[in-house]
Amino acid sequence: MSTSEPATRARASARPVEALFAPRSVAVLGASDDVLKWGNWLARGALRGAHRRPAYLVNRRAATVLGQTAFPSLSALPGPADLVVIAVPASGLDAAVDDALAAGARAIVAITASSHDTPDAAAAQAALAARVQVAGAVLLGPNCLGVMDAGEQLELATADLPAGAIGLISQSGNLALELALLAARDGLGFSRFASLGNQADLGATELVGALAAHEPTTLIALYLEDFRDGRAFARAAHDAVAAGKPVVALAIAGGAVTARAVASHTGALASDDAAIDAALRAAGVHRVRTPQELIDACSVLLRCRPMAGRRVAVLADGGGHGSIAAAESERHGLALPELSAALCRRLRTELPAVAAVANPVDLAGGAERDVHVFDRIAHTVLDSGEVDGLLVTGYFGGYAESGPEVAAEELRAAGMISAVATATRRPIVVHTMFGAGAAAATLRDAGVPVYATIEQATAALHRLAPRPDPAEIPSLPVPATPITASAAGHDERAQQLLAAGGVPFVASRVVGADTADVLAAADELGYPVALKALGPLHKSDAGAVVLGLGHATALRAAYAELVSRLGPQRFFVQRMAPLADGIELLIGVRWDPRLGPVALAGAGGLYAEVLRDTAVALAPVDQRRACALIASLRIAPLLAGARGRPPLDLDAAAQALSALSRVAAAHPELAELEVNPLLVLPSGALALDARFVHVPEEH
Amino acid sequence: MSTSEPATRARASARPVEALFAPRSVAVLGASDDVLKWGNWLARGALRGAHRRPAYLVNRRAATVLGQTAFPSLSALPGPADLVVIAVPASGLDAAVDDALAAGARAIVAITASSHDTPDAAAAQAALAARVQVAGAVLLGPNCLGVMDAGEQLELATADLPAGAIGLISQSGNLALELALLAARDGLGFSRFASLGNQADLGATELVGALAAHEPTTLIALYLEDFRDGRAFARAAHDAVAAGKPVVALAIAGGAVTARAVASHTGALASDDAAIDAALRAAGVHRVRTPQELIDACSVLLRCRPMAGRRVAVLADGGGHGSIAAAESERHGLALPELSAALCRRLRTELPAVAAVANPVDLAGGAERDVHVFDRIAHTVLDSGEVDGLLVTGYFGGYAESGPEVAAEELRAAGMISAVATATRRPIVVHTMFGAGAAAATLRDAGVPVYATIEQATAALHRLAPRPDPAEIPSLPVPATPITASAAGHDERAQQLLAAGGVPFVASRVVGADTADVLAAADELGYPVALKALGPLHKSDAGAVVLGLGHATALRAAYAELVSRLGPQRFFVQRMAPLADGIELLIGVRWDPRLGPVALAGAGGLYAEVLRDTAVALAPVDQRRACALIASLRIAPLLAGARGRPPLDLDAAAQALSALSRVAAAHPELAELEVNPLLVLPSGALALDARFVHVPEEH
Repeated sequence: MSTSEPATRARASARPVEALFAPRSVAVLGASDDVLKWGNWLARGALRGAHRRPAYLVNRRAATVLGQTAFPSLSALPGPADLVVIAVPASGLDAAVDDALAAGARAIVAITASSHDTPDAAAAQAALAARVQVAGAVLLGPNCLGVMDAGEQLELATADLPAGAIGLISQSGNLALELALLAARDGLGFSRFASLGNQADLGATELVGALAAHEPTTLIALYLEDFRDGRAFARAAHDAVAAGKPVVALAIAGGAVTARAVASHTGALASDDAAIDAALRAAGVHRVRTPQELIDACSVLLRCRPMAGRRVAVLADGGGHGSIAAAESERHGLALPELSAALCRRLRTELPAVAAVANPVDLAGGAERDVHVFDRIAHTVLDSGEVDGLLVTGYFGGYAESGPEVAAEELRAAGMISAVATATRRPIVVHTMFGAGAAAATLRDAGVPVYATIEQATAALHRLAPRPDPAEIPSLPVPATPITASAAGHDERAQQLLAAGGVPFVASRVVGADTADVLAAADELGYPVALKALGPLHKSDAGAVVLGLGHATALRAAYAELVSRLGPQRFFVQRMAPLADGIELLIGVRWDPRLGPVALAGAGGLYAEVLRDTAVALAPVDQRRACALIASLRIAPLLAGARGRPPLDLDAAAQALSALSRVAAAHPELAELEVNPLLVLPSGALALDARFVHVPEEH
Repeated sequence: MSTSEPATRARASARPVEALFAPRSVAVLGASDDVLKWGNWLARGALRGAHRRPAYLVNRRAATVLGQTAFPSLSALPGPADLVVIAVPASGLDAAVDDALAAGARAIVAITASSHDTPDAAAAQAALAARVQVAGAVLLGPNCLGVMDAGEQLELATADLPAGAIGLISQSGNLALELALLAARDGLGFSRFASLGNQADLGATELVGALAAHEPTTLIALYLEDFRDGRAFARAAHDAVAAGKPVVALAIAGGAVTARAVASHTGALASDDAAIDAALRAAGVHRVRTPQELIDACSVLLRCRPMAGRRVAVLADGGGHGSIAAAESERHGLALPELSAALCRRLRTELPAVAAVANPVDLAGGAERDVHVFDRIAHTVLDSGEVDGLLVTGYFGGYAESGPEVAAEELRAAGMISAVATATRRPIVVHTMFGAGAAAATLRDAGVPVYATIEQATAALHRLAPRPDPAEIPSLPVPATPITASAAGHDERAQQLLAAGGVPFVASRVVGADTADVLAAADELGYPVALKALGPLHKSDAGAVVLGLGHATALRAAYAELVSRLGPQRFFVQRMAPLADGIELLIGVRWDPRLGPVALAGAGGLYAEVLRDTAVALAPVDQRRACALIASLRIAPLLAGARGRPPLDLDAAAQALSALSRVAAAHPELAELEVNPLLVLPSGALALDARFVHVPEEH
């Protein structure tokens, strides 16, 4: 568990990542005439770029490959090999990498899988990567599908990728293939592609940096199973987004991290998936769940400017499509405002009497008389400023079936729809049931995203809605002196640790097993109090706590009962908190092996795991972000005062969360640290209970 | 607001709905040579069926249409017209219907829109429908797109529909068109189609009945904006499902019902959409949200048998697709059990060493050597009985690119995959990135559903998981004496009404403004009590209630304060309920204009609207269904006892909900009736507050 941020950043700036995409020369090790071998694909790809750079084919036995001179080894090449692609059997990988380094390669692509299918595989790959790094080179793979750069005509990937503006980084070969097919169908393509493979050396972080700096790449797409250093990755993605390049990521939880035992609510609720969400949200990355969603997101982000707000209009030719698109838009959190009376009057002059115009706008057959009602209505609606974007849904693209004149007008209307989006600076997204037709193609070519289903179109439009500003990816503090693992005094230590860090606790005292001491503590704290038996007992032991002791007599009786039943050596005397006056929250941090400390706020007490009403962010969180996190909970309205109750102290709750997150971030040895409940009161917030869980020992 | 169930059912059995789909003769009123007119489409369609039945074309002016003799009027026909299709201008609709009835038509299809675009449109249509009903005929429309029966070769719709097994009822023309396109792409088609239009006479209920009785129809699909009598519809759909015909419905909330003001939590939470959900769920209908979802559901329900459980395996050739499909499956509530060690050993013998086998199963390139690993692994996994269904995802269908021999083997493998599903009686659903290829077509033809995206495939598989048994659609009791609307004594009347119906309330007394009476009531009830000022005060007036009065002195003081401040004429003295011992629920009923009384259970008290943790069912609900409703809430685990608390009395809570639902169902004049909170205790449940809202007067 190490973040190794400074190392990563320093390394990234100095390393020859560009040699991977824009090498001065290329050598294919294992070039082959056998069409079933990858060395054949790669050799052909290298030769297609031979007018741009020397392409050397290396084969130990053959004198020629693909009709070209083949060289028996890298040392026999007539010139230097800037980029070496290795497609030899696994057993030859180590030697091939060493040969490449000896030949002066600055970049190596290891298509070959690692042969280290042993418990030592990770160590062997690390050793390989170390040799590459010492030599000042970079290695992609092993076990990857290669690299591509459209502008450089570098085609060293085992998948055919159409050219375009997307920089793609993928950890799965078949997935890259599917993305290529889906992109081509949508008229999109790729500027660069790197297949990650095992990420022995080069990982997603450095490659995102390279794509962010690559001018022809205007959007970065990723498929990732393992973030490695997740904070470094988030920072690189954040920088790319800040530089104006949207990042879309399909990230799988639990791909590399084995399932873990969790011991606290925070551990259960701040899941791997939630942690990934938090990291990608902080970086401003669009997260998607499937390949189609990824390409759909690329289409709308490449083709449209963002919306200034969440207000959209739906334009349909038929009430059914309008209703469905409206419902789907609202499901995505978009708003369909009723259009103003003045605007409705203007729309009505264009449409049949039975048309609905208030939003959705239903052409009601108006386009059958003149297909240009689409572009005219689109202009009127968007130019009004009453909405931030427009969804056209249904039949557009099908009027062509009425004959060649109408077909021609429909193509012109498609062009004019695009012009409306440009002129009004507001996006138009189209769903058509004729997605394979000419009008759809014209729209796409003119920069209007077109989708085959209503659900894709509405999901795409919602990606253009305003998003929270990306957070700075928080840096981690210098680790504090570790808390040692030990059963005794657990709760006290958790409380001490957090109280010292600025988390306010309800007043309490720890005293020995002595009646006078217990009574004195209660007098000092003020009644009513709670009494808890401490010591070798586990806190969850039934009956170790007695609540609501209103006076000394009750306290004496509870004390005597606990002593006789549990024989504790010490007691915890706590002022009873005014539970009925406030709301209970859960606040906590889980240390994720990839993403570091992840802060969680949620409904607390009885409701914590039942409601799963939680919000998660990379820790530490400052006061502002802690506020936003708590305010995003479903139960947040209760903090504003419900049923005539006074508003509760959100600021104090946020302060407690922020303080807890700072403490946790300084204690990587604690896998989980939580306060539950945190009682938020009209004035202030009080932690009532705290606990931590150590990172399990490695074995 | 009337349910009119008996009338609907009696009518359905006697009416000649079959004449709509299987007429003995057809006449097209408004048949035309003008290809832009609907009368042209319809005439051509009628003539295509002329070998099955006489097809008469009627045109007032032309002697011939489409080269056939045209008749100037229905009275001039040489034989009877069993089905008359009307495609004349709107102003001629009424006369055309009367002419058709005079000519002895048993069924009329009014393509023509109603010309009654006036406030009286509904009345005019009702009058038209009454004339049709008196004549013993049926009318489809007006303003509809026609009717089709594939087996009868009846093609009187303005949309081309491929033939197949789906009976389609649609309230939108362009939507029917999109469904036809999507179905054709998936190798599916339609047995019958009826376009509802304005449903002046024939509605979805009767047509569902006709499709349920139609042997070639094996699945019923609907697009509906207005249920009319929603209970009658639900009952018809329920009967169809019970008869073995799955029903899939795309139903839009709020299409016909105008937005309504809501006055209670129940009114806000039992939304139109939730009410539709409740009705369709009770009927056993698959609800979908978009046209693509509808066709995707048809594909899997027509082609697969249901699963016995929720356990599925994922079979992928590549870790990426496997991980994504696993995550999407789990998102849909499917379980991916780890396969047994014995089964994993068997799978490993078939696959490369690096393959993952525990589930997802990753072929890891194994299919490149032999594409039949797909059908062999599918058989081994499904035959083991360790899962209930299988999802194949990713590259299958693309091996054909390796050459003609592999292509042929891949087609054979597709056939064998289908055979595995048949032999093991467990469904296989396929996602392939090559959905337009030959292997995909072979799979579809062999009865295996194939999807273009992972999200569609996992959504489809989840439709095969076991579903709760459809409920009987509850009947409504005879209405009780209506509660009259009046501001005074509102809360008492709500409590009296519900208490008389069997809802247990916390003990209370209503007494006059007299200290002695108030004190006597408290003595009788037992302290602590709550005191509420009644009378002309509105209950939400701040400070009309004082809680937790522990003794007579406190009660006296509270009484005096309320008298001096609010001057009430009566008081409500209530025994304080032990709030800390239980959980607060919300129970209520909303009367929906289409669906009748809809019962709601939810998290109550402070949390009611914040959490929106609710479950909804058609009312009245019996004890078993009330239990199931409450048990489906997210907060339900708290009823089982949380944090060492004793379990709470679910049965008592269910009894209260059931009783409330019976009362509400007998009072259609009450738009909303609710208890909030219902305090569920370790033994028993107590209503603490109740209210009702009258249906607004029509204006």
